[in-house]
Amino acid sequence: METVNQIIHAKWLITCEADNQVLENHALVIHDGKILNILPSDKATTLYQASDIQHFDHHTLMPGFINSHTHLAMNLFRGLADDLTLMNWLNHHIWPAEKKWVSDEFVYDASLFAMAEMIRSGTTCFNDMYFFLPATAKATHTAGIRGHIGITVIGFPTAWAQTSDEYIAKGLAFYNEYKNHDRITATFAPHAIYTETEETLIKIRDLAEEHDLKINMHVQETADEVNQSLAQTSKRPLRRLHDINFVSPRLIAVHMTQIDDEDLEIVAKTKPQIVHCPESNMKLASGSCPVQQFQSLGLNVALGTDGAASNNDLNMFGEMRSAAMHAKLITGNPESLAAKEVLTMATLNGAKALGIDHITGSLTVGKAADFIAINLDTIETLPLYHPTSQIVYAASRSQVTDVWVAGKQLMKNRQLLTLDEKELMKKARYWSQKIQET
Amino acid sequence: METVNQIIHAKWLITCEADNQVLENHALVIHDGKILNILPSDKATTLYQASDIQHFDHHTLMPGFINSHTHLAMNLFRGLADDLTLMNWLNHHIWPAEKKWVSDEFVYDASLFAMAEMIRSGTTCFNDMYFFLPATAKATHTAGIRGHIGITVIGFPTAWAQTSDEYIAKGLAFYNEYKNHDRITATFAPHAIYTETEETLIKIRDLAEEHDLKINMHVQETADEVNQSLAQTSKRPLRRLHDINFVSPRLIAVHMTQIDDEDLEIVAKTKPQIVHCPESNMKLASGSCPVQQFQSLGLNVALGTDGAASNNDLNMFGEMRSAAMHAKLITGNPESLAAKEVLTMATLNGAKALGIDHITGSLTVGKAADFIAINLDTIETLPLYHPTSQIVYAASRSQVTDVWVAGKQLMKNRQLLTLDEKELMKKARYWSQKIQET
Repeated sequence: METVNQIIHAKWLITCEADNQVLENHALVIHDGKILNILPSDKATTLYQASDIQHFDHHTLMPGFINSHTHLAMNLFRGLADDLTLMNWLNHHIWPAEKKWVSDEFVYDASLFAMAEMIRSGTTCFNDMYFFLPATAKATHTAGIRGHIGITVIGFPTAWAQTSDEYIAKGLAFYNEYKNHDRITATFAPHAIYTETEETLIKIRDLAEEHDLKINMHVQETADEVNQSLAQTSKRPLRRLHDINFVSPRLIAVHMTQIDDEDLEIVAKTKPQIVHCPESNMKLASGSCPVQQFQSLGLNVALGTDGAASNNDLNMFGEMRSAAMHAKLITGNPESLAAKEVLTMATLNGAKALGIDHITGSLTVGKAADFIAINLDTIETLPLYHPTSQIVYAASRSQVTDVWVAGKQLMKNRQLLTLDEKELMKKARYWSQKIQET
Repeated sequence: METVNQIIHAKWLITCEADNQVLENHALVIHDGKILNILPSDKATTLYQASDIQHFDHHTLMPGFINSHTHLAMNLFRGLADDLTLMNWLNHHIWPAEKKWVSDEFVYDASLFAMAEMIRSGTTCFNDMYFFLPATAKATHTAGIRGHIGITVIGFPTAWAQTSDEYIAKGLAFYNEYKNHDRITATFAPHAIYTETEETLIKIRDLAEEHDLKINMHVQETADEVNQSLAQTSKRPLRRLHDINFVSPRLIAVHMTQIDDEDLEIVAKTKPQIVHCPESNMKLASGSCPVQQFQSLGLNVALGTDGAASNNDLNMFGEMRSAAMHAKLITGNPESLAAKEVLTMATLNGAKALGIDHITGSLTVGKAADFIAINLDTIETLPLYHPTSQIVYAASRSQVTDVWVAGKQLMKNRQLLTLDEKELMKKARYWSQKIQET
């Protein structure tokens, strides 16, 4: 008998590997935060012993969700202003609130609050773009979640930095501080082409290559963005980015809702990572990301919720359903984006987009033990013919009962283990009171 | 002090009346199953006494949702087959399963199971179309929910009836048995124009008028339906229905995704009720119901989930979000179908569609006490700037804590009071086992 840290038995186990197997009555054997073995429960019992053995008789285990695009600290602006045009929303609600309130303290409290929401809905890894990166990192460290934190660069002053150079300098300092952290990774995050100069983008491109960092950017989110670019330069944003060798597998191109044949040619050649945020794109009426077309060109497409101020949650269950329904609507084909494909977008494809598919994104021997348990024995998810279909089309976030990152349990039977839920809610009420009074 | 049956205090109260007020610290005073008064909590305490007084300090009260189109008993086929074209799904999965299994016993068990799901997600009234109506009615009586049960008429034999005449005869017998029931109402439910003869539709039209019943029908759900009608008669379905005086406020036209200018002219004149089922229409790639256009013509548009075999749930929260996002996507305008309007579609407009807005659909003095409590003090719905927005864009069905129909409490702090959840789950497992073995 080999002694290991944990043995987690479950009725079902969805690997989210390429063949996306659904195994029955299997166990995950975990040691030193990594998956040591995946085998039938009866065999696991004869081969391994552990002090932490758990049984999930009505649950499926699966990799935690990877939310490939979000602005965590905007959680405290959730529901502040809805059903508005993007510019009205930004100019009259979000930007004034951000200007007034965003600080180190705000970002820490808001990000921690967002992490509680993510853990409660089965997300184990995020890709963030916001300000006050050390505050987000501190929260990530505390929460125990896995986080990619964007070195935001935006062409106007905020409380975090005044100039593009200052954004970059503070970002590099942050990168250096955290580069050996086992769960926290820096990425470059130029906000968008309309908020950056070409010169800054070239600088970012070179620094990203030097430090081998991903570049995370809003690209062709709206028709306005494309039209403005055409008016100013006679070129579409993707063409301009391609002309400075900015489009490559290193680029995580978020949204991509306004795509023509020239754009498709560029991405077919250059193979950037695509992040689809269907709910944000629908709610803000931004447009439709042509997921099927990107996939048929061999591109990797991941899934993100965007910030909770626009979406209005960090719920990957809702995002998966919306992605599936949206794809069927825009292609007119109900076979588009089947449940299995959507589940892969929400897990393994996220890891690929972030360049960490050797570490996480599927239940695979040798990868980190980043996984969740979902109770499928509820009124809402019975009968149970196909677990994958049930997770995408019928289950709710509240059916996630347990969450682990790198083998450490972050939620047990709906109780958060690293965060104080009551305290976080108190803080959220405190901030919203202040924000409402302005 | 006046003695009444119940006084229910809450932090917020959303009336869903025309002006859709959000009241703070108010109480619902209930007597004999009806709303006797709505007033500030402190005043209620001085004017009324009751043996049943409840306080909901972190909740909003609002009318229960009205699911204006569903096929309840299909709940036991939930997730049996997904991501397929409609005809593949019907021919190779649903119809064979229905042929083999649908019976009085099946419909009773499946409908009761569906009612548990509805109550758990805050739905207090449904509009059903299926077979074995007495079984559905028996379940409705037991569950304590409010139900409109369709006298389905379909041009082929099933286990329930062989001919259109038999469907109608059995339906009228059902109507006569239940016409004095205070929560159960019969409607006529010819399945669709392609499964009925004109002669039968005329018969239904006249019987519906004679007994003053609504007529509930799938209309122009898919392009195939319209094309088939054009090929056979050179007329679109709505034109054919209009030519036999079938389109009127009595008609509940479900889906309506394929709409041209001629169709708009017809409905502008004839004012049928429209039921929008966005998730089913997206998932089956049926098309898009032009909700905004219908509303601008002064039509009443309600919301339905469709059956759980296609959708795959009976969750009006998801349906509201999808309706809002779908509208913004297809109009390109983020101001389309704001949260407040969607909430009205899911409540008062449903009551209008079913012709019971004098009885239910809003929190109004004199109407039945059909209402729910939603806990908004959760990680997922904080901060709380606007309760209406939060319900539509951020809350989950699991935040519904309490449900009442006609003053009778059906769920208390997530516990069903009229149904045995464990027993229902056992039955669902029993049936799915049988269905899977075929």
